Amino acid sequence: MHDDGLQEVKNPSEIFLSEREKEITGSVVTSSIEGTRPILLEVQALVTPSSYGNPQRVATGFDYRRLSILLAVLEKRANLRLSAQNVFLNIAGGIRIDEPAVDLAVCCAIASNFTNKFAKSDTVVIGEVGLGGEVRSVSNIDKRIQEAAKLGFKKVVIPSNNYKTIKSKTTIEIIPIENLPSAIKEILN
Amino acid sequence: MHDDGLQEVKNPSEIFLSEREKEITGSVVTSSIEGTRPILLEVQALVTPSSYGNPQRVATGFDYRRLSILLAVLEKRANLRLSAQNVFLNIAGGIRIDEPAVDLAVCCAIASNFTNKFAKSDTVVIGEVGLGGEVRSVSNIDKRIQEAAKLGFKKVVIPSNNYKTIKSKTTIEIIPIENLPSAIKEILN
Amino acid sequence: MHDDGLQEVKNPSEIFLSEREKEITGSVVTSSIEGTRPILLEVQALVTPSSYGNPQRVATGFDYRRLSILLAVLEKRANLRLSAQNVFLNIAGGIRIDEPAVDLAVCCAIASNFTNKFAKSDTVVIGEVGLGGEVRSVSNIDKRIQEAAKLGFKKVVIPSNNYKTIKSKTTIEIIPIENLPSAIKEILN
Amino acid sequence: MHDDGLQEVKNPSEIFLSEREKEITGSVVTSSIEGTRPILLEVQALVTPSSYGNPQRVATGFDYRRLSILLAVLEKRANLRLSAQNVFLNIAGGIRIDEPAVDLAVCCAIASNFTNKFAKSDTVVIGEVGLGGEVRSVSNIDKRIQEAAKLGFKKVVIPSNNYKTIKSKTTIEIIPIENLPSAIKEILN
Amino acid sequence: MHDDGLQEVKNPSEIFLSEREKEITGSVVTSSIEGTRPILLEVQALVTPSSYGNPQRVATGFDYRRLSILLAVLEKRANLRLSAQNVFLNIAGGIRIDEPAVDLAVCCAIASNFTNKFAKSDTVVIGEVGLGGEVRSVSNIDKRIQEAAKLGFKKVVIPSNNYKTIKSKTTIEIIPIENLPSAIKEILN
Amino acid sequence: MHDDGLQEVKNPSEIFLSEREKEITGSVVTSSIEGTRPILLEVQALVTPSSYGNPQRVATGFDYRRLSILLAVLEKRANLRLSAQNVFLNIAGGIRIDEPAVDLAVCCAIASNFTNKFAKSDTVVIGEVGLGGEVRSVSNIDKRIQEAAKLGFKKVVIPSNNYKTIKSKTTIEIIPIENLPSAIKEILN
Repeated sequence: MHDDGLQEVKNPSEIFLSEREKEITGSVVTSSIEGTRPILLEVQALVTPSSYGNPQRVATGFDYRRLSILLAVLEKRANLRLSAQNVFLNIAGGIRIDEPAVDLAVCCAIASNFTNKFAKSDTVVIGEVGLGGEVRSVSNIDKRIQEAAKLGFKKVVIPSNNYKTIKSKTTIEIIPIENLPSAIKEILN
Repeated sequence: MHDDGLQEVKNPSEIFLSEREKEITGSVVTSSIEGTRPILLEVQALVTPSSYGNPQRVATGFDYRRLSILLAVLEKRANLRLSAQNVFLNIAGGIRIDEPAVDLAVCCAIASNFTNKFAKSDTVVIGEVGLGGEVRSVSNIDKRIQEAAKLGFKKVVIPSNNYKTIKSKTTIEIIPIENLPSAIKEILN
Repeated sequence: MHDDGLQEVKNPSEIFLSEREKEITGSVVTSSIEGTRPILLEVQALVTPSSYGNPQRVATGFDYRRLSILLAVLEKRANLRLSAQNVFLNIAGGIRIDEPAVDLAVCCAIASNFTNKFAKSDTVVIGEVGLGGEVRSVSNIDKRIQEAAKLGFKKVVIPSNNYKTIKSKTTIEIIPIENLPSAIKEILN
Repeated sequence: MHDDGLQEVKNPSEIFLSEREKEITGSVVTSSIEGTRPILLEVQALVTPSSYGNPQRVATGFDYRRLSILLAVLEKRANLRLSAQNVFLNIAGGIRIDEPAVDLAVCCAIASNFTNKFAKSDTVVIGEVGLGGEVRSVSNIDKRIQEAAKLGFKKVVIPSNNYKTIKSKTTIEIIPIENLPSAIKEILN
Repeated sequence: MHDDGLQEVKNPSEIFLSEREKEITGSVVTSSIEGTRPILLEVQALVTPSSYGNPQRVATGFDYRRLSILLAVLEKRANLRLSAQNVFLNIAGGIRIDEPAVDLAVCCAIASNFTNKFAKSDTVVIGEVGLGGEVRSVSNIDKRIQEAAKLGFKKVVIPSNNYKTIKSKTTIEIIPIENLPSAIKEILN
Repeated sequence: MHDDGLQEVKNPSEIFLSEREKEITGSVVTSSIEGTRPILLEVQALVTPSSYGNPQRVATGFDYRRLSILLAVLEKRANLRLSAQNVFLNIAGGIRIDEPAVDLAVCCAIASNFTNKFAKSDTVVIGEVGLGGEVRSVSNIDKRIQEAAKLGFKKVVIPSNNYKTIKSKTTIEIIPIENLPSAIKEILN
């Protein structure tokens, strides 16, 4: 993780933004809570055809089993045929995430690279994904939205169950989402 | 786990309820004891045909070996042919459970998704499952039932051995169950 | 493990007894020492034909390698052809055991389910099993026997080397056993 | 491990002796240092033909990799064709050993069961085994020999390099050994 | 790691430099932050054809999963066909690195050995590699550049996003790089 | 490890020397730093043809992945065809080593057993091995050489980069080595 280098930057999330390559598929920005403050992160996926019978699934910074489950959900609920693909997942910056709030961004990054469609670079994606493909609410939704707004993002995709409880006012466009297929449709160009 | 977001909610179990997608198979609500208080949880299962010889069995928030054993029990005692299926199990909310009291909900969630029948959304399922397919009693049954009643559930399926020892009065319908096949019959629509 | 629920019960071993399903094969009661006091436990085994070349061996609450070794002993010393079978082992109640005194009960539970013969439900089985199939003495034999008697069991199978050293008087029938085949013969109906 | 039951016995090693089944192949007594005092242990091996391509090698109480290496030494230096055999190794009493001084007993127990020859039941076997098949000296040789003598063993096989340094007088017959094949010849009947 | 031997050397990075074999492919110098100070390291790769279907990927001092991901990026973004190759990675000196700033050097070392082209021995390579093949900025870039200059290196390859923020003046040639293919082109002779 | 037995010996390294079997291939003496003092160790290798497709690689007291990497270096840089061989590695005395200074002795022991040539028994071998086959300098070279001289060894093979920095005078013959093939040539008879 970028440790003392971060102290020179006003906001630790900015450093992630500056890196964003808008021309590459498989990259989605999400928000995680580190301790008590929100941090924006870039989730990256790389999907390649598996030349052998046993496809590779490798993640750094994200739980391997969680990735396996999200791949099954993508296959069953979003009709992406990933079972014969190698899937690599990376959280940029060497960070490790444990909370389910990044599930939706992981799914969208995989969908983006697999379908070879760009994810909208002005949008932050937040939400837990259930095995039914439903997008589930997350904690601290206000903090996460404010951070996205502060860093200049135009839109934020959030769970529809969180939408009703938002207290803060913000200029960022908030897009409530009910399930995984809708989120993928929304986020991919 | 939903950490500080929970503090805004009166009862931590409510958050799980609000998420429930009634139209998806493979989802069952159960009750676990976190420290000294009961918490309602949603167990989710996804069963897909295995295209390779070696079926996947992946769980997050639940012991992998326990899942393997429950699958064998489902096959032997409830006649569900799961040995050629991929089985994915998830405890919604990123929570990790260690107590056997959620066994029965895990089994019912798998049976629901595999048979493509909805589990009753107004029912909480509680019980340890033995290798003989028997449903075994659990601790703190009163606390668990009260929590289910408080959150508006209509019914609670519990081990018949626990039934005799219930002390508290409650308006929720209590359904004592002796074994796994009866529980599956009761909970699936 | 049944934690605070146990406080309502006079004797923690009673709870296990109340669960016993007499009509299911693969279930044997044994005695383990938790700290300084004896606790009766139910060991459960489920043996199913392996449809693939690589049979499954899964245990919860018991060491996986110990299970593998006991299966080899059962095959070699008791002539049970288990090498092409899936074997699942469970200690009821979510308890984890580390002492070899439960070996004999594990072996008898497997033999019971595999041969489809009921194990005597009024008998507690105690003993370490050596690779030669011999039943080896265990510590605290008096405590273990007293607990079995107190809970109403009629018989207790113990290692013959322990038999000579028993100090306490008891009304329970004590059956000294020298080796695994004799124990299986004794315990299966 | 036999915990408080040991307090009733004068010498903790005696309990192991009482268990010895003289009629079973694959059993050898050795000596290990627990803290500062010697303890006699029974090493047990079970060797069975492997019905599949991938032979099983399972040890409880002994390092799995150490077992693999000793099997290679037995094959290369003592001409025992173990590569297509399942090998199970157990330290009786549920004890775990980490010191190389028990290597020679492990090798002799395997050789005994594989060749179906009894190991001498009146002999304690002590020594580290090198990859060249040489028997290497161990620490605390005097303590180990005294313990074997005290418990009534007639002979003790020790590394020849230890032989020169023995200070204590004893009535037990001491047999210095230079390499693994000699030890096997000496210990098997 | 070179522990007290380091105390005789003025600068701990010097020891690495003295070892550099300029005539061997697969070796690249990078910079890591140990605590608060920069340390120059030599990353070494060895790529050999895989004679079996399952290629070996072994790393010492570097995360195995990170290596797998970087190999996928090299294959997809730099067109190096590594999927049928054994890849061995070593951080010289027995050091273990966890920060992504060494990603680019790892990739260049692998590319060098695989293409059998020498990496420039007067150049230090710094940068995180994203799944899109983009080179991402790292923390402490000034410290890292100063260390490279002090030890006599002529050039340093850094992420272009870091280039804008450099504060220190230095005589070393700084080469900003945007992506992995450009870096490989720059560093290989 | 030889614990209190060591207290009877003047120098802990002597015990290793007394064990050396000069007539066995695959044995090389090296020097490691335990805390602050040097200790001489015997590295042993056993190489056997692999009868199955998947060769075994087992090490006790040495990192498994390090062994895999050194085998690749031996194959590529010293032309030893080890990929279809089982390789077993042992540090005599039950000691565990973590520093790269023993790499060269590990490689020479493997080369000795594989080529069936004796390693010189009067020589201590010291050096880290890089993936290019180069022998890299180690820390504390003076301490290591002094220990080898004190115990009566005639020669010590060291990295040529260490040769220039030796401060102490000694009667032992010092042989500087640049790479792995030269070391193997030097050490094998």
